[in-house]
Amino acid sequence: MSIKNLLIEMKNMSELMVDLAYSAVLFNSKDAAEEVITLENEVNSMNYEIKKESLVAARSYEDAEKLTALLEIAEAAESMANAAKDLADLVITGFKPHPVFKMVMEESDKSIVRVTIDESSELANNTLGDLLLVNRTGMRVIAIRRGVSWIYGPDKNTMLLANDVLILKGTYEGAELLEKLASGACSLEDIPEELEEELE
Amino acid sequence: MSIKNLLIEMKNMSELMVDLAYSAVLFNSKDAAEEVITLENEVNSMNYEIKKESLVAARSYEDAEKLTALLEIAEAAESMANAAKDLADLVITGFKPHPVFKMVMEESDKSIVRVTIDESSELANNTLGDLLLVNRTGMRVIAIRRGVSWIYGPDKNTMLLANDVLILKGTYEGAELLEKLASGACSLEDIPEELEEELE
Repeated sequence: MSIKNLLIEMKNMSELMVDLAYSAVLFNSKDAAEEVITLENEVNSMNYEIKKESLVAARSYEDAEKLTALLEIAEAAESMANAAKDLADLVITGFKPHPVFKMVMEESDKSIVRVTIDESSELANNTLGDLLLVNRTGMRVIAIRRGVSWIYGPDKNTMLLANDVLILKGTYEGAELLEKLASGACSLEDIPEELEEELE
Repeated sequence: MSIKNLLIEMKNMSELMVDLAYSAVLFNSKDAAEEVITLENEVNSMNYEIKKESLVAARSYEDAEKLTALLEIAEAAESMANAAKDLADLVITGFKPHPVFKMVMEESDKSIVRVTIDESSELANNTLGDLLLVNRTGMRVIAIRRGVSWIYGPDKNTMLLANDVLILKGTYEGAELLEKLASGACSLEDIPEELEEELE
């Protein structure tokens, strides 16, 4: 992977981790917290690869000076990842929230959810543009984990596949609906009309 | 400020810092790097306030246990901010980029820019919805600094004021145009037709 793409990947991973980590805390979401842990492992692996490649590539003091910047960038990415992991750990171990925290979680109708697309799900083999999930369910896909790769900020052309892990943000109602759609328990036609009208 | 709003502010600041810090590196932008430094100071101030408030609020061991989580969250935010600052410092001190870095910056027509709205600028006292900067210049406002406050992810209803500091992402051409629009050196009517057509 070129350095440019490496840097862009690090940026995307860092941004997603920060979003997911705070969302995990705000919504007390173990799902989001677990995805942060997965991402942190990937950042560590990436950092390790960068160190190896830089050591092999350095042929002179001049080379070394220039590659040092890359190592420093990777270190910063790892620090961010560790901090995000600290937030995720709070949620996974189950922190005892001050009463004010509880109010935060209970008063909001917002939520973050993680679903896996089953083979039988109508979501599989359709693009986000075709599915119009935001319009129909109020849920927005913020990232997709496919095997060990991530798709950041998916758009209307992004096609969903069976076994994709989706992270979505929206409302409680929408989250429950998405879980059913993803598992194949219900289809797009089943979406209650009241919900669709509410979203309009 | 309630804990909920405090957490949301920390989340917004962390996300913006990570975006700006990586963008500063990718585009070798001292402007973006300087804004990261400003934000890092604010995170430090916020962390200090949280520590003070938590110490005053704790009346029992039970209280203390619950407020500990808040202190840990603030510590994580500060770690993220420090890592972002490390990236910004690379750009400000001027790192000697490996030839591959140079290619990244030169081949891309993308850029990040910071402008201050002059009293004489047409941008002042208009909403982003009215100005349609994305359509007309290809530049998107990602954040606005107004005095010591930040507006994150502004939308079409956000009104711009004189002395606002805007951070925008887009193309080189668009960035130059925005600097002229912000300083009052040119007006919206002056935008070259070729640029508008290109953006359509």
